[in-house]
Parts: sequence; C-alpha cells; structure tokens
Amino acid sequence: MLGYVLNSHQQWLCRQLSDRGYLVDRQTAVNDTAEAIQASVREGMARADLIIVTGGLGPTSDDRTRDLIAELLGRPLKSDSEVLARIEGFFGRRKRPVPASTRVQALVPEGATVLQNEHGTAPGLAMEFESGSRSGLLVMLPGPPRELRPMFLNQVLPLIGKRFGAAPDFCCSVLRTVGIGESFLEEKIAGDLAPLIKRGLDVGYCARVGEVDLRFVARAAEAESLVQEAEAVARKHLRTFIYGRDPEELNAVIVRLLTEKGKTLALAESCTGGYIANRITNVSGSSAVFLGGVVSYSNDAKRRFLGVKAETLAKHGAVSEAVAREMAEGVRRETGADFALAVTGIAGPTGGTVEKPVGTVFIALAAANGTEVKQNLNQYDRETFKFLTSQQALDMMRKELVAGTS
Amino acid sequence: MLGYVLNSHQQWLCRQLSDRGYLVDRQTAVNDTAEAIQASVREGMARADLIIVTGGLGPTSDDRTRDLIAELLGRPLKSDSEVLARIEGFFGRRKRPVPASTRVQALVPEGATVLQNEHGTAPGLAMEFESGSRSGLLVMLPGPPRELRPMFLNQVLPLIGKRFGAAPDFCCSVLRTVGIGESFLEEKIAGDLAPLIKRGLDVGYCARVGEVDLRFVARAAEAESLVQEAEAVARKHLRTFIYGRDPEELNAVIVRLLTEKGKTLALAESCTGGYIANRITNVSGSSAVFLGGVVSYSNDAKRRFLGVKAETLAKHGAVSEAVAREMAEGVRRETGADFALAVTGIAGPTGGTVEKPVGTVFIALAAANGTEVKQNLNQYDRETFKFLTSQQALDMMRKELVAGTS
Repeated sequence: MLGYVLNSHQQWLCRQLSDRGYLVDRQTAVNDTAEAIQASVREGMARADLIIVTGGLGPTSDDRTRDLIAELLGRPLKSDSEVLARIEGFFGRRKRPVPASTRVQALVPEGATVLQNEHGTAPGLAMEFESGSRSGLLVMLPGPPRELRPMFLNQVLPLIGKRFGAAPDFCCSVLRTVGIGESFLEEKIAGDLAPLIKRGLDVGYCARVGEVDLRFVARAAEAESLVQEAEAVARKHLRTFIYGRDPEELNAVIVRLLTEKGKTLALAESCTGGYIANRITNVSGSSAVFLGGVVSYSNDAKRRFLGVKAETLAKHGAVSEAVAREMAEGVRRETGADFALAVTGIAGPTGGTVEKPVGTVFIALAAANGTEVKQNLNQYDRETFKFLTSQQALDMMRKELVAGTS
Repeated sequence: MLGYVLNSHQQWLCRQLSDRGYLVDRQTAVNDTAEAIQASVREGMARADLIIVTGGLGPTSDDRTRDLIAELLGRPLKSDSEVLARIEGFFGRRKRPVPASTRVQALVPEGATVLQNEHGTAPGLAMEFESGSRSGLLVMLPGPPRELRPMFLNQVLPLIGKRFGAAPDFCCSVLRTVGIGESFLEEKIAGDLAPLIKRGLDVGYCARVGEVDLRFVARAAEAESLVQEAEAVARKHLRTFIYGRDPEELNAVIVRLLTEKGKTLALAESCTGGYIANRITNVSGSSAVFLGGVVSYSNDAKRRFLGVKAETLAKHGAVSEAVAREMAEGVRRETGADFALAVTGIAGPTGGTVEKPVGTVFIALAAANGTEVKQNLNQYDRETFKFLTSQQALDMMRKELVAGTS
C-alpha cells in the first residue's frame, strides 16, 4: 500500500478464473496489519463462495497471513512433518542450511489441505469456511508469481472444479481497433448490438491513446453464438478499423503480415527516436522481415545516412512533408527494403512554432509504387506522442499490406 | 475483473499518497454493476476520510460511475455549461465533430467541484460526503493514466491538503543502483544500518532485472535526519553503484551528464533494436546531445551505414567483439559524436549456438581515447534482454562520464 509494488496477481488470477467462466466479484488489497487482514477475509466470507488470499506466507516477520487466518477460523496450527521434510529437501538440493525462520512454513491449520510448492518453500493452503448458514472455500497462495501461478493452475483449479462443479457457459472475445475513437466506434455498432445486449451480451470499451479494445462477454447457454453474432456486427461496421484480436498487438500484426507476404521493412525515425524499431524488434521473428532503421535525430544524420538533400532541409525545415518523403525513400533505397516508413515531427515539450506547433508530425510510407505522406497533430506528452505516432505509422503499413491482398 | 486490464492506478496513487505521509487503508476493485459500485463506495464512506474512485466517467454505455455515485449521495446531476464548452473546445481544436455521447461528461452532481481535464474530455469531480456522524471527501478521476495523473497532482493533492491539513512527519528516499545484486548490496550496508533501524528506520529493497532500488522510510520527529544518515551509509559503501535518486532513471542521468559536459552521443544497435535510442529520446532535451543512431538489424545495414567490414562479419560473425567495435567506431565516425555505444547480441528465443548461446551480447563504447568492449550473458525473455542490455550499455557510458569528472 506504499505504492512500491505493482499488483499483477489481480489481472492474472481474474483472467484465469473468468476465462473458465467463474465470476470474480471483488479484489481487495490491505495493509499488513492483523485488523486489516482479518477484516477483509471476514467480509469476503460473508460475500463469496471462494476466497483467494495471496502473499504473507513467507518466513519473515511481516508474513502473518497464515497465523491470522487460522486464528480467525479457530483452527489451531500444527507442524506438518511432510511439509517440513519438503522444506529440508528444498535447501538440501541447493546445498544450503535450513534457516530456522523457514520452519514456520510447515505450520498447517487443522483440517487444511496442503498445496505443494514446486518452486519455493511456502506451501499453499486450502480450507473450508462457514459464514452464517453458508460455507465456502478459502485458498492461501504464496506471493511470488513463479510459485503462485503453477500452484494455481495445477492444484487450485482442479480443487475449485471439484468443490463447485463446472462453471456456467461463458464466452469472451476482445477485438482490437486503431484509428477510431471510442464514441464513434460505439455509434457505428450500438444499433445492431442492441438486440444482442437484450439477449444477455455484455459490451465493454477500453480506450487507450491510439487504440480502442472492444470486448464482448456472454454467460448463457448461447454464449458462444451471441459473441459470434456480436463479432459479425463489429466486423461489418468497423471493417479495417479492426486490426486483430487480443492478445496480438499492432506491431505483431505487422511482422505477421510482412512474413506472410514475404516482404521487408526499413525505418527512418526522427521524432519517435527508435521507438518504432523497438516495437518491431520486440516481436520474435522480426529479423526475417525488418532490415534496419536509422534514428536521424540531427539534420546531419538525415543527410548522411538517408541522403536527405540540404536544400530540402533548408527550404522546408526538418519537420516537413518533403523531408519525410526523402527520409522514407532514402532508407528504402539504402536498405533495399520493399517498404519504408519514416517519421519526422516535434515531440515537445519545446521546439514548436506557430506554423508547426508541438505535436506536428509527418509520416511517410515508401513502396515500389510510390510514396504516401500523412500529416497529424499529436498533442500529448513525449512518450504518448511517440506511441500514438508509432500506431499511426504502423497502421499505414497495415492498411497497405491488407489492401495489397484484395 | 475479467483480467484484461492491469490496474496500475493502485500503485501510482498509493505511491503519491504515501510519499506525502498519507496512510492508504484499502484498495478495492469491483465489476461494472450498479450494486457493486454503490456497495463499495458505501463501505468506503463508513471506513475512510478520503475515497478516490477511478474510471467509469467516459462517454460509452459502460461508464456508469458518475451517475451511480450521484444517486448514492442523493445529488441530482446538472449539465455544466463551462464543462460543455471545454468538451466542444477539445474536439474543435482537433477539427472533429462533438459526438453526442460525450455530452454526458458535462453532467455534474449538485455541489461537486469540477476538476478540469487537460488531456481529455471527462472532468474529475470532488464532493463532500456524510456517513453517520462522520464526513469526508470523495474524488472521482477519469481512468486513462495520462488524464488521471496530472489531475491528481495538480488539482487533487492541493484539495486534500486544504481539506485534511498537513500529513504527519514522514520521510522517504529511494536511491537507485545498477550493477550489483540485492543480496550483495544488503551485505555491504546491513551492519552500519542496524543502529538506524533500531531508531525506527525502515529499509526496503526492490530488485528488478538490471537495477535495485534501496528505500529508506521513517515516520518520526527525526524522520528526515534518520533518512539522511541512512543515505550517508549507503553512499559510503555503495559509491558508484548508486546512479541516482528516484524518480530519475538511468537514461535521464546520461542525458543530464552529457549536457553538463557538453558532449554528444551516437548509437549503433543490433539486438536491442532501437530500444536504447528510444530510452535516450524519451528524455526531453536529448536532441541537444544525441546525434542519431542506426538500428543495424541486418549484416547489410551494418556494412552500409556503419562501415563494418565484410571480412570482419565473415571471420567473427555478427555477434562478436570485433563487430561491436567496428559498429561503435563506425557510427562515431559517421556522426562525429564524442561517444558512441554499440550493441550486438542474440536476443532469442532462437539463433543461439553452443559457442554463442541465446543471451550473448557484446557492448562497445567508442571515445576519442579508444574503444572498450564488454561481453555479457543476459539469458532472459526478449524484452527483459533488451532492458538489461540497455542498462549495461548506459552504465558503461555513465561510468565513463563520471570518471572523466574526477
């Protein structure tokens, strides 16, 4: 709660559960105090059938979850000889002495099921709880993701299936769009989605700068067909605004399309400073289609590496349609790539003029059949400017590759 | 709650609040249903003096937070003409029509304070609440981080200070280190920190790949002097392992040092694919010291842009000390920069050999007085490999710049 650690458990556990049709009702984070930990578990027992608690099972003095929950449920702790033997084995294999503090990890609340930890020393624990006339399952998992994740997949999911039976029918699909804002996106599809929403479809929009995710969820006997019908509506009205499906990102789509078509790409970046090259090279396999790039941050670099003419720079300025064009054509010529993207602009916060304010950017796509240049105004902070500009450049490339198909 | 979005608000908001001495009691995430949203706010009002709600203020049909909280607090919504004018201005500047749905963002609950959104259309809202005999402040913020963060810093923090007065004495300092693991780091300082810990100092280690943050926290009358003494201990034992202080990152340190010394940098990147250039150009003002870079992903690009010799490539392979050296010297020669960094390696997951396994990387630093090359083995996933390699390259540059001072 001091803000030094990012909670990645919520997203991971929610995704695992919801992908299997379980509805996650609430996630809570609290401080490491007895009152806060016991209060949140007590509240969870009054509300839910399944409670998953993460962290606080380790050997140090701030690891209090096991004790506090055993106390709350009135279950005395007993040392489990099998768990102790496993802990000793863990250190033995690493040829290290067993620290005295780790022995608390062998304490198991009465009646609890032990979940073996294949990647650490703290076992997980599962136990039944009663709250009023209701009963449910409480699971404690160790905090480190590499211990928690396999334990959840291999041991907790089967336990949940046995305890609660199969989850209800559930279907979820996330389509990714680029080049359209969320309001306009909803306007285009809302009418045709309305009857599906009446039949139980849930529609969500997640807008980021430069892209909007469109999420369809259904929980019903006809969940799958509802989501399929919704996708058909989206594809009919949004067409090429849809670039793919979660979790594939736009850079991965570009590498996939280039690979499928046996085409190569080169980059000349000024204001994005290597960000587009970085995104492309984040994709495994990009070396087969990406020949290289130039980060021409100075005028000299634009002339020397890309052959941009001194007259063009003098006449139009570095941020201009003419320079973007020469940059793209220059890097295409130098590398022999099929396609070249070039960007030149003013990322800010300084460097703008009345004629070319901060955020002005020219994006060029050079190909065998000519060069296309677009001008945009991306008025954002520096890193957002880079991301949005890279989305626009990659989307020009995508549209060219998709259009080339038909 | 479906696991499609990572909650980064918790960490960021907790950090902002705790750094200023406010104690964050609880964080809760719920589904987009009326019952869940209203129940969690009702519970928060019974527990806390300040409630911060994020998201759900946008224009689409799943944005229900404003309505539901206004209803819960019994405050009718009214359209605010000033907010409406701002929304129209936002679209007007972008030469786009105002979508009808965005007008709901001009609805303001009776008695609420409007927090202007400098980076989007949905304003934030702040309002007093009463719960039994207690009263408190409820703040609603838009979900996109680039809208939420400046609004919180510029508008909400002053509001909190005015409403609740100064937070208790609190001091926190985070030193950033590179090139040393957390166990060794702790070994070096634990002895001298022990007496400070007895006086109330709290020490935290946050280890990421490629760097370790060292955090000192104190909450006492002598908080500031305790943290200062701890810093002195750290600086005495860790010396140049410390590269700066949170929130300054290593790339910003490099740009600052280059600027102070009036020196310039060029880059030649193979396996990092533009990531180092991207990090450098993320720093505002980098254009004064960064001349440019080449992402020489193919052998051809290494020859053509950097003058790497075909014989060198044939004899030693692209991933070699000799090629790293020629890349650094080539880009330094071509750009006329004072310093040049070059990296060549195998990011993986494929491309490794027995002699040069995945993760092998050569890093070269070329300067007027010669070229230094280091070899490392960074066996991680692709993006972690790039980050760690960039840390090592930037740290070579930092050590050279710092050594040049003394």
